[in-house]
Amino acid sequence: MKYQLASRMAGMKASAVREILKVTQRPEVISFAGGLPAPELFPVDEISKVAQEVCAEEGRKVLQYATTEGRPTLRQKIADRMNKIYNSDLKMENILITTGSQQNLDMAGKIFLNPGDVVLMEAPTYLAAINAFKAYECTFKEVPTDDKGMIPEALEKILETTENVKLVYVITDFQNPTGICWPMERRKAFMEIMAKYDIPVLEDNPYGELRYEGTTNPSLLSMDQRGQVMGMGTFSKTFCPGLRIGWLACSPDIMPQFVKVKQSADLHSSAFDQAIIDRYMDEFSLDEHVKEINALYGHRRDLIIQCMEKEFTDGTTWTHPEGGLFLWLTFPEGVSARKVFDKCIEKNVAGVLGEFFYPTTKSDRHMRINYSNMPDDRIKEGIRRMGEALREVAAGK
Amino acid sequence: MKYQLASRMAGMKASAVREILKVTQRPEVISFAGGLPAPELFPVDEISKVAQEVCAEEGRKVLQYATTEGRPTLRQKIADRMNKIYNSDLKMENILITTGSQQNLDMAGKIFLNPGDVVLMEAPTYLAAINAFKAYECTFKEVPTDDKGMIPEALEKILETTENVKLVYVITDFQNPTGICWPMERRKAFMEIMAKYDIPVLEDNPYGELRYEGTTNPSLLSMDQRGQVMGMGTFSKTFCPGLRIGWLACSPDIMPQFVKVKQSADLHSSAFDQAIIDRYMDEFSLDEHVKEINALYGHRRDLIIQCMEKEFTDGTTWTHPEGGLFLWLTFPEGVSARKVFDKCIEKNVAGVLGEFFYPTTKSDRHMRINYSNMPDDRIKEGIRRMGEALREVAAGK
Repeated sequence: MKYQLASRMAGMKASAVREILKVTQRPEVISFAGGLPAPELFPVDEISKVAQEVCAEEGRKVLQYATTEGRPTLRQKIADRMNKIYNSDLKMENILITTGSQQNLDMAGKIFLNPGDVVLMEAPTYLAAINAFKAYECTFKEVPTDDKGMIPEALEKILETTENVKLVYVITDFQNPTGICWPMERRKAFMEIMAKYDIPVLEDNPYGELRYEGTTNPSLLSMDQRGQVMGMGTFSKTFCPGLRIGWLACSPDIMPQFVKVKQSADLHSSAFDQAIIDRYMDEFSLDEHVKEINALYGHRRDLIIQCMEKEFTDGTTWTHPEGGLFLWLTFPEGVSARKVFDKCIEKNVAGVLGEFFYPTTKSDRHMRINYSNMPDDRIKEGIRRMGEALREVAAGK
Repeated sequence: MKYQLASRMAGMKASAVREILKVTQRPEVISFAGGLPAPELFPVDEISKVAQEVCAEEGRKVLQYATTEGRPTLRQKIADRMNKIYNSDLKMENILITTGSQQNLDMAGKIFLNPGDVVLMEAPTYLAAINAFKAYECTFKEVPTDDKGMIPEALEKILETTENVKLVYVITDFQNPTGICWPMERRKAFMEIMAKYDIPVLEDNPYGELRYEGTTNPSLLSMDQRGQVMGMGTFSKTFCPGLRIGWLACSPDIMPQFVKVKQSADLHSSAFDQAIIDRYMDEFSLDEHVKEINALYGHRRDLIIQCMEKEFTDGTTWTHPEGGLFLWLTFPEGVSARKVFDKCIEKNVAGVLGEFFYPTTKSDRHMRINYSNMPDDRIKEGIRRMGEALREVAAGK
């Protein structure tokens, strides 16, 4: 039969990264494409232990339907943890448990966006955010960014001259895909500008805890006095992604809208998975666990940058992230990222083409590289192959 | 700050049932309001065992990001099981794992509904479906129903005279809230009418396996030769709801739209919870487990109807479900359900007011009663109190 789809479906694409992952899952391919955490650090034995305890001590309660807002003790722990790390002042009532932090993107789109409304974003930015918002038929306006995040003057100008801006989406810590982190003065300047507008800010922060050097800045959420900033968080990078537990931290003034939308989207997130994380945090130290993750990822970042310094002799440059999962390559002027990508695939190595991360710009100069999910020997061999590909493209082969 | 919400938010309400549940959770209230399965039957020890095995044997894989479509072996098991029970011919490729079957309602709305489009529904129907679709600013048209489901002639007339019908939503087995089940001739008549139209049918079936007597009819999905019917299913009622694992069964022609929408909504459903259910079905018999559930619920239905026959002496009538979780009260003409409800609350007993289950009709004659979640003594005492309330309302007190 002939299906007639809603008009919003025309703009929605299958995730480019997920499609690429299918190509790059052949074992002979060294893939820097995914955004996967290192599975060797998943606390598998601890999860097994607490899962048993959940069943033994509260199984019949935890396996029943639960409240949409989420498990109270877990919401409290998240509030406490965010306050400690990012200097915020959250209470349990500010926290909504979500099905991965991805769910927040869909919910924010649903709550704030009419067709034609404008979303401001960094460029490049998280590609699944672009797709999630597209479902609500918005348009995007890229805010020019440099190596410190959104440029305040550029943001201000766009706000002054653009109608129907209904949401500003930012990733302030170790941004996906660039790995850059907004310094304090940028955060302040951003908040000062935004304070002049009644436009909500969605601060996505899946990577902030993965800092291997330097000091953590307060979140935008912590600097907000007027319920303007909604903060997204997740256990996917600090614990494991398979459980799909994230959260939203926001003002009680807007929380009921998210609860309503979540009710109709999936009633509540897995109560069993929530209980596992909650008990893990009672019995083990998530802080210590995150330290282990950071030691490993810091090592991998050092190694991959060392390798790139040696292998990337064609003028390609890269960001130097102090945390997170990604760095961002910029190829020399005139070198097509698409060509590099194709040459890489020939050599069984892959990153993600930069073009997917731009809401509107057509860019053919970049590639995203993930280094969190790769043992040393494969980092070395992968970057060697990529260097070879770069030299061949530069030589016009 | 002043929040400016998308226009769709004006139509969305917090779930009436979830709000009522808060009132009725006081321990002194005997509540027939929820739609909760009996927790004493949750296979807690079995879940504990398979959770350990998942961790020990495939922990690092299961706790990682996973495909949006879901765990292949679980998808296959669902297809096989549906084929056995409902006479369908599904393959793994027809099954998408979802975060509860509620997620399907949101996804179907997103995929098929533009503002102003029309959704046809039974009246009364599942209230969270009404809310999920409302997020897409549709309008509803109630198809007159009798004790066998949608009335074919009425459906045909509506289809002939209504523009922009984009979705038909039905619950064919032990409907929520009425408990009625469509007989075979109704299913056939429905499918014959629908075959004349390119309008997708969403067949919600959370209760079909909970049949305590009689024989199961083929699903609409199994009767469909043209990719028109999308079938929804869930483990919430046959296993436990806390894990939030449901599914969609549909044609490969429309599946990619659901995958795309699910990607942007939550990437994938809990891989850990999927693995638990998959392994449970390997090691234990879900069929035997469902038999136990049906024995208990059948007993509770018998008991509650017995009690109602004795206590409801005012002319109130009820449906006699052959399965599922609910029955539906109709009060005598002139008796306000709202008055009965208030009187019931005075006496610390509750059901759900019927009015919440109608997309458009204003109805004040009905109440939904859940009996799956209640031990015998509380059923007896609850119905005794309710009978007292009914007699007092009839007497004008």
